[in-house]
Amino acid sequence: MELLKERIRKDGVVKEGNVLKVDRFLNHQMDVKLFREIGKEFKKRFEGEDINKILTIEASGIGIACVVAEIFDVPVVFAKKTQTKNIAGDVYTTKVESFTHGRVYDIIVSKEFLGEGDRVLLIDDFLANGKALEGLAKLVKDSGAELVGAGVVIEKGFQPGGDFLRKQTHLESLAIVDAMDEKTGEITFRE
Amino acid sequence: MELLKERIRKDGVVKEGNVLKVDRFLNHQMDVKLFREIGKEFKKRFEGEDINKILTIEASGIGIACVVAEIFDVPVVFAKKTQTKNIAGDVYTTKVESFTHGRVYDIIVSKEFLGEGDRVLLIDDFLANGKALEGLAKLVKDSGAELVGAGVVIEKGFQPGGDFLRKQTHLESLAIVDAMDEKTGEITFRE
Repeated sequence: MELLKERIRKDGVVKEGNVLKVDRFLNHQMDVKLFREIGKEFKKRFEGEDINKILTIEASGIGIACVVAEIFDVPVVFAKKTQTKNIAGDVYTTKVESFTHGRVYDIIVSKEFLGEGDRVLLIDDFLANGKALEGLAKLVKDSGAELVGAGVVIEKGFQPGGDFLRKQTHLESLAIVDAMDEKTGEITFRE
Repeated sequence: MELLKERIRKDGVVKEGNVLKVDRFLNHQMDVKLFREIGKEFKKRFEGEDINKILTIEASGIGIACVVAEIFDVPVVFAKKTQTKNIAGDVYTTKVESFTHGRVYDIIVSKEFLGEGDRVLLIDDFLANGKALEGLAKLVKDSGAELVGAGVVIEKGFQPGGDFLRKQTHLESLAIVDAMDEKTGEITFRE
């Protein structure tokens, strides 16, 4: 998606340790006009797919998911991150390892909002190691719902999440970063 | 807002301890069509106000804020909750006490995204004791931006947050719950 790549080049900041900061428009300040264009692009890429629910994960996925959901005309469910020890039996839950934060947390979705008959599109802002999306895919499977695909705004193509997820489902990443140079700030996108 | 009150009556669940669960449409599963109507209502109630930014707090405020922001045609900034000890100097920060979770956490907003010249509308899903919105208002003040008002979807009118916030700014709550009966499930709204 050319508009997105231009925006990443203009406002993205490459930091030490392969960190790409996009908090000017994606995950701290949120450009909802761009989100709408992102939604239209996902709609095009999942054309003809029967989707009745979007599943995302808190926090930064929620805004994008909601604007995208308006275009798909479906509700959003977001998985909650929790460190609560005692989780009631009325939720689907799995563990997710966060490389960014160096810890493992539980994610949960109420059984009331995901189940047989649902045809689910996952939406998230970032895909790197893919643990969050892998966790969401597991919740979908556990619930008896069908995973239709996953839509990601930015994929770090040099990390393993994308390849792993493509084996499981129809993955669409709107910008795939293949390399970043923290010295020059240069970002190389996959063609 | 009649549509919202009807929805709360239909899908809200009154639980022990004055808890109103609205996770079927507001803060776990999210009905983005309703969010759009909510956005139109806020637009009407803040008619004529000069607003260039919406500020909310993760997680459940983000989805509503983004859909509302599309109607106001402004970007969203969301304050992040953190328990990180060392917060860099490039953020505004304050402490917020959560009654629901029984703890105190720091909220932060990058200085890059809030400052002089900004005219800010706060948006959140719930207002009870008002500590989260009070924290957001403090960040706005600290940044030199101007607080134009606060838009809340559901206010618990029997808790002190609303009265406190009304003294500070133009508060609009789309549904004010004055009483709940956990035995009958009855919800009394303020006229």
